[in-house]
Amino acid sequence: MPVRRGIVVAVTTIRATVLHTPSPDRLDVLVDQAIEIDDTGRIERIGAAGPDAHADVVLPDDTVIVPGFVDTHLHAPQWPQLGTALDLPLDQWLFEYTFPLEARFADLEFARQVWDHMVPSLLRHGTTTVTYYASIHEAATTALAETCARLGQRAFVGRCAMDHPDGTPEWYRDPSPEASIAASARSIDEIRAIGSQLVQPIITPRFIPACTDEALTGLAALAADTDTLIQTHCSEGDWEHGHVLERCGVTDAHALDRFGLMREHTVLAHATHLDDTDRALIAQRGAGVAHCPLSNVYFSERAFSARAAIEAGVRVGLGTDIAGGPSPSLFAQCGHAMVAGRRRVDEGEADARVDTTTAFWMATAGGADLLGVDAGVIEAGRWFDAVAIRLPDQVVPDGDWASRFERLVRLATPNDIRSVWVAGRQVV
Amino acid sequence: MPVRRGIVVAVTTIRATVLHTPSPDRLDVLVDQAIEIDDTGRIERIGAAGPDAHADVVLPDDTVIVPGFVDTHLHAPQWPQLGTALDLPLDQWLFEYTFPLEARFADLEFARQVWDHMVPSLLRHGTTTVTYYASIHEAATTALAETCARLGQRAFVGRCAMDHPDGTPEWYRDPSPEASIAASARSIDEIRAIGSQLVQPIITPRFIPACTDEALTGLAALAADTDTLIQTHCSEGDWEHGHVLERCGVTDAHALDRFGLMREHTVLAHATHLDDTDRALIAQRGAGVAHCPLSNVYFSERAFSARAAIEAGVRVGLGTDIAGGPSPSLFAQCGHAMVAGRRRVDEGEADARVDTTTAFWMATAGGADLLGVDAGVIEAGRWFDAVAIRLPDQVVPDGDWASRFERLVRLATPNDIRSVWVAGRQVV
Ligand SMILES: [Zn+2]
Ligand SMILES: [Zn+2]
Repeated sequence: MPVRRGIVVAVTTIRATVLHTPSPDRLDVLVDQAIEIDDTGRIERIGAAGPDAHADVVLPDDTVIVPGFVDTHLHAPQWPQLGTALDLPLDQWLFEYTFPLEARFADLEFARQVWDHMVPSLLRHGTTTVTYYASIHEAATTALAETCARLGQRAFVGRCAMDHPDGTPEWYRDPSPEASIAASARSIDEIRAIGSQLVQPIITPRFIPACTDEALTGLAALAADTDTLIQTHCSEGDWEHGHVLERCGVTDAHALDRFGLMREHTVLAHATHLDDTDRALIAQRGAGVAHCPLSNVYFSERAFSARAAIEAGVRVGLGTDIAGGPSPSLFAQCGHAMVAGRRRVDEGEADARVDTTTAFWMATAGGADLLGVDAGVIEAGRWFDAVAIRLPDQVVPDGDWASRFERLVRLATPNDIRSVWVAGRQVV
Repeated sequence: MPVRRGIVVAVTTIRATVLHTPSPDRLDVLVDQAIEIDDTGRIERIGAAGPDAHADVVLPDDTVIVPGFVDTHLHAPQWPQLGTALDLPLDQWLFEYTFPLEARFADLEFARQVWDHMVPSLLRHGTTTVTYYASIHEAATTALAETCARLGQRAFVGRCAMDHPDGTPEWYRDPSPEASIAASARSIDEIRAIGSQLVQPIITPRFIPACTDEALTGLAALAADTDTLIQTHCSEGDWEHGHVLERCGVTDAHALDRFGLMREHTVLAHATHLDDTDRALIAQRGAGVAHCPLSNVYFSERAFSARAAIEAGVRVGLGTDIAGGPSPSLFAQCGHAMVAGRRRVDEGEADARVDTTTAFWMATAGGADLLGVDAGVIEAGRWFDAVAIRLPDQVVPDGDWASRFERLVRLATPNDIRSVWVAGRQVV
């Protein structure tokens, strides 16, 4: 047993083949590895298992270990409407369906019922880290963080700040910029007070149309003061993009930067309408994009170019955008990210193709990098956030691991997931 | 017990709620029905179940009956490469991956092994009818038809005819137009000789680039002489579309019509590049399109406009195009059909939107209509080709059946399928 800082640390060893994507164009296949996990949940060591190596858990031959999925954009209070009401323009969808549903999370018992349904479902889909938008309600937001801590999901949980009298309904908004900032500050303290290493607060101005300049500026200052990450929406569709251009005179990315919100690891959802200067700015700040390809089909008029963003040095992860995106599965998002890339190619952007490796990278290592989480790759020193998954059934054995990986990304379903670990703890 | 033609007919009664889509814009919800199925497998009667109605099978409350899926385009010998090798142009994909794999079906034992893996898997996905391209081999083709008859899947099975010295490799082609026509004729006889009401032959010229004019003309005559359906590819992508324009001087649809192949219920795969005259011609002939939206992402440069085709009176079903499309699930195809419709809207075709009702209609009633099969809708007189499926788990009960249906189409997975019937026989 290894000894660290004078304490004997229990180590669990899992023996399996590992597939992961440390960079957008690189698939690593590590056959028959011994993965040693210390009792803090980090990978102590990983290397080829000898013929008679000790292992506490040996996975069957048809099952591999992959990094857990990172869902970088998900609206938790929209979980009850997943899969429905998707044929409306964004502004109408928000005011008629989404805001009324989110307003119900004033009821803490209702919120707890939804969180207790949603978090286990996401874990069963192999999602080990989520960046959550919660509702405007502090109690419901804290309850979401508590649920993640209790059930063992890594999470960034953000009370949704929205105070603009024009961009929000009277019955679902923060009453003033000051109230919006104060509630966000209290929410940060409450989430940190839970004391879970898995759960962090994230400052969450809904999007520019829903927030006053005062709130946006104050939330940026709060992020700097409290060293908290930020998430928001950015250049999602024509209506929203046009609103910001008119109100601020610049694109979302530049407007967010002026407000002070474009910081290291700031998560920008969608960003389908970026230009070169936007990409350069986002890369320079160390921020990145939560690419939500299925949601974009419904609420953007364009497909995001993941390739152009990656080439420009922008961090990129995948997001479901539940419930704007009607699927909780990151496998489905990988498929739709490839579809979005092909669409960009057809539209004339020759290098826009996204293959299974790049899609899977965004769903794992790219998302972890966007959030600054030590996960997404199965290597020593990182958290053991991982999924054991059965390779798709096949009639003729694949000749090579590259084909097996392609088939896994394209054909696996949540029912192929056998176990899920977050920080070394088995949660499924 | 009902009496017909002097014989007492055994009737099985299933009690459940039925969801189906008799037309592209109409969802019917038939709550708590008694479905009486005669021993030929047709629906004898369907109507509201009285409070104490007799039923042989009562489905649980969370489970509904929907029509079985109709997959109108699937390349059976490509099953082993499902989900792989999708990042090549069509011509390269054919010559480097697909033709070599199809050539292996000269080995009848290999073919049987693949069919015994594929057909049960498709049934588990809820696919009750398939229009199959087989390989050029008569024995493998007949074996596929036998497998479908034995396992109870409704199928149109076509020996693939391809004889063009430029469009096919020397090691995988019919040796001459005469040989191509003769082998197709023998294959029709062999499949009919099986004597299964479930399985029919279909004449299958691969596509114009792979066939000589002589073969195409002869196969059309064979269809007329033997009253056999036809399937082929039509205007799939720029390369193929351009080839036909250059060789024939007209678009695929008009060229196929000149060869005599555009008949009632002719199945045209893809058809992404149709113009108004093509649509008018296809509608006039009573032919239709196997819309393969996921495959189109990889091998077409455009999205098919299902709406424009439906409005023009063209029959439209959905197809997986396995293995050009990397998913065996018609649920996945419904999702991608909606994505394709949205893309057409973004490209300026305002009315191109495909919603869950239209997508599901194409996957069931539309496909059945394309093939002239009395299925796709759960009504008296039609075959009982049906799926019992669990409604997606939900935290807040949906207020209405329209939402439940939306959620089902968008979120159900093959694992939610509890039973599958084809012509009244339970096959899953
Ligand atoms: Zn969002
Ligand atoms: Zn095809």
